Amino acid sequence: METLNVALDERSYPIHIGSGLLSRPELLLPHIKQKKVVVVSNETVAPLYLERLCATLASGGIEVLPVILPDGEKFKTWETLNLIFDGLLAERCERSTILIALGGGVIGDMGGFAAACYQRGMPFIQVPTTLLSQVDSSVGGKTAINHPMGKNMIGAFYQPKLVLADILTLDTLPDRELKAGLAEVIKYGLIRDPEFFDWLEVNLDKLLARDQSALVYAVQRSCANKAEVVAADERESGERALLNLGHTFGHAIETGMGYGEWLHGEAVAAGTLIAAELSCALGWIEAPTVARIERIFVRAGLPVISPALGVDRYLELMSHDKKVQDGKLRLVLLQGIGKAVVSDAASKEQIAAAVEIRCTAAGRN
Amino acid sequence: METLNVALDERSYPIHIGSGLLSRPELLLPHIKQKKVVVVSNETVAPLYLERLCATLASGGIEVLPVILPDGEKFKTWETLNLIFDGLLAERCERSTILIALGGGVIGDMGGFAAACYQRGMPFIQVPTTLLSQVDSSVGGKTAINHPMGKNMIGAFYQPKLVLADILTLDTLPDRELKAGLAEVIKYGLIRDPEFFDWLEVNLDKLLARDQSALVYAVQRSCANKAEVVAADERESGERALLNLGHTFGHAIETGMGYGEWLHGEAVAAGTLIAAELSCALGWIEAPTVARIERIFVRAGLPVISPALGVDRYLELMSHDKKVQDGKLRLVLLQGIGKAVVSDAASKEQIAAAVEIRCTAAGRN
Repeated sequence: METLNVALDERSYPIHIGSGLLSRPELLLPHIKQKKVVVVSNETVAPLYLERLCATLASGGIEVLPVILPDGEKFKTWETLNLIFDGLLAERCERSTILIALGGGVIGDMGGFAAACYQRGMPFIQVPTTLLSQVDSSVGGKTAINHPMGKNMIGAFYQPKLVLADILTLDTLPDRELKAGLAEVIKYGLIRDPEFFDWLEVNLDKLLARDQSALVYAVQRSCANKAEVVAADERESGERALLNLGHTFGHAIETGMGYGEWLHGEAVAAGTLIAAELSCALGWIEAPTVARIERIFVRAGLPVISPALGVDRYLELMSHDKKVQDGKLRLVLLQGIGKAVVSDAASKEQIAAAVEIRCTAAGRN
Repeated sequence: METLNVALDERSYPIHIGSGLLSRPELLLPHIKQKKVVVVSNETVAPLYLERLCATLASGGIEVLPVILPDGEKFKTWETLNLIFDGLLAERCERSTILIALGGGVIGDMGGFAAACYQRGMPFIQVPTTLLSQVDSSVGGKTAINHPMGKNMIGAFYQPKLVLADILTLDTLPDRELKAGLAEVIKYGLIRDPEFFDWLEVNLDKLLARDQSALVYAVQRSCANKAEVVAADERESGERALLNLGHTFGHAIETGMGYGEWLHGEAVAAGTLIAAELSCALGWIEAPTVARIERIFVRAGLPVISPALGVDRYLELMSHDKKVQDGKLRLVLLQGIGKAVVSDAASKEQIAAAVEIRCTAAGRN
C-alpha cells in the first residue's frame, strides 16, 4: 500500500492506494467515531462492493445506512442530491455522522457536495471505484452537481477526511471507463510531469491490460501530482487551474452532447487535442508534439476528434466556464509536454479555428 | 455610522450600521471590482429599495442584474435557490462577480448559500433590510435553505465581504416583523450581555416606536455580541451554539406549523420561554427570572405560549436538530440572565414537561 498526504493544515488527509484496501478495517475504523455511517453509492457499484465495505465496517461494530442512487452523469442533479438529503434526514444523521462515497466521480462529487451542505458540513470519506475518480476527482475537495447550462456549476470546495483507492475495484470497471480514466492520467504527464508522460508511452499497454502494479504506480503518481497542486492552491486561484487542461472544451462537449453521452475522460481527451491544436497555432508547440499527444490518446482508445456541435455552440457553451474572468476566456494551453499555462492569449478566431480543425474527422494525422 | 469588524483572519469583514447607508457609494464601491453585480431580492423589498441601491451603484458605473424572488420563509427551498442559479448562469456571471443580498433573513440565507455554491464560491455582500437580519442572520456566515423535514438543514458556513445595515430601511418594516426582530435582540441580553438586557427593559418602548438612535444602538450592540461569538467559534464547535437559545424549540414550531406561519423571531420567543421553563425545572434559574423573561417578550408583542402541536410531535421535530450528538439532544439553557450553557442535562421527560407547560394558554403568569 502507498500512502500520500494532501497537506492542507488542519484539513490535511491521507490517500491510501493499493489492492484489497476495502477489506482492511484498520484503514477506515480510526476515522469513524460513531456507531453508524451513511454510504452513498449507485445501482452499479453497490451490488459489487457495498457488501464488502459493510463487512469491513461491521467488524468494528459499525452499522451502514445505504443511500443508493441511479447511475450516470445525467443524474448529477439537484433532484438526485435531494435523495441523499432525504436519506440523511430520514435516518436522523447528525452533523458528526460520517458519509462514505462509494463509487466513481459522479458519486464522489454528489456525496461530497451533500456532505458539504448537510447541516452546513458533515465529515466524509472518498472510496473511489473507477480509475478516473481514483486519479482525479476523489482528491482535492472539488464537489459539485451539474446545471442544465453548465457542468459542475453548483458545488463546494470541501475536503474528505480520507481517500481509500482500492485498485482491486478496477477489475470490474468496463473497458470504456478504464480508458476514460487514462485521459486524466495522461493529463498529469502533459501539464507538469514529462517523465511520467514518457513512462506512460512505454507502459500504456500494461495499464490497458490492467496490470496491477502498473495501475498502482499510475494511480499513485497521478495522486502525488494532484496532491502537490492542491496543497499549493486549494481554491484554484492559480496553479490548480492547470488541472483543467482540455476541460473547458471537454465540458462544452459533455454539456452540448447531453450529460452522460460522452464520458468525462473521453471529452477531456478530445478537448485536450483542441487545446494542443490551439497551442500549436499560437506557435507554442510544434506539430509533431500535437501528433505525439494525439498518438497516446489514440492508443488509449480515446476520441481525438470532437463532436460537430458547430463552432458557435462551442463558444456559447464555453462562455459559462468557471475560468472566464472579466468576460475573457482563460484557457489551459501547452508550451511543451510537461508544461501547461493558463492564458487568454488566444483570440476568439483562433479558438474557433482550433475547434473547427479538431471537429473534422480528417484531424491532423 | 458605526463600524464593527468580524475578525476571521483572511475572511474578516466590516459591518457598517447607520441611517442612509444605502445611498453612500463609498461604502460599497471599494468592494466591487467588476462592472456588474447581481442583486438578489424579493417582491416586497425590491420595489422599496432596489432603485436606491441601483442609483448608488450606477454612480460608480456599475450595472445591476436583479434576481427577484417570491417573498417568504416557505420559498426558502431548492426550487427558489435554483432561480438564483438560473439567473446567474443566464447572465454569464463569473466566479468573481459579486452577489448582493438585499432583504431579510430569507434573502440573506438564500443569497449567501447561492453565492457559496455558484461555481464553488463567489463573493457576496449582505444588505439586510429587517431588524432580524440586521442583528442576527446577516452576520456570521450561516447560510441555508430549509428541507421539509427540518429548517436550515442544507447550507454552508460562508462569510460575506461586507454587511451594510441601513437603519432607514426599518421604516417600512411591518410592526409584526419589527417585533420578531426584537426576539433576537433580547436573546443577546439573555445569553451573554446582562447590561444590555437591563438597557432593553428600559428602552423597549423606544425601539417599538422606531426611535432611530435607539435602533442604531440596539443593532450595533447585537452585532458586536454576534461578531465576538463568531470570531471565537466560526463553525459552531462550542460557544456559537449559545446563539441558538430558543432555536431548537423555535425551529420545531416553524417546521411543525408550516414554514412562514410563525415568523422566525416569534418562534424563537416562544421557544426561549420553553428553554427558560426547563432551566427553572432543573433548578438553574428561579421562577421570578422566568417571569421577567416572559414580561419583556410580552412587552415586545411576541408570543410566549407555544402552539399545541403535541409533545410527541415536538420531540420528533427536535430529533433532527443540528445540535443532536450521539443521539442526545443538546439544548441551550439558562443559568441566569446573561448566562447560557449548552447542556444535555435535561431528560426527555423534563423536556416534555416544559413543552407541555408552555403550550397551555395559562402559561406561568
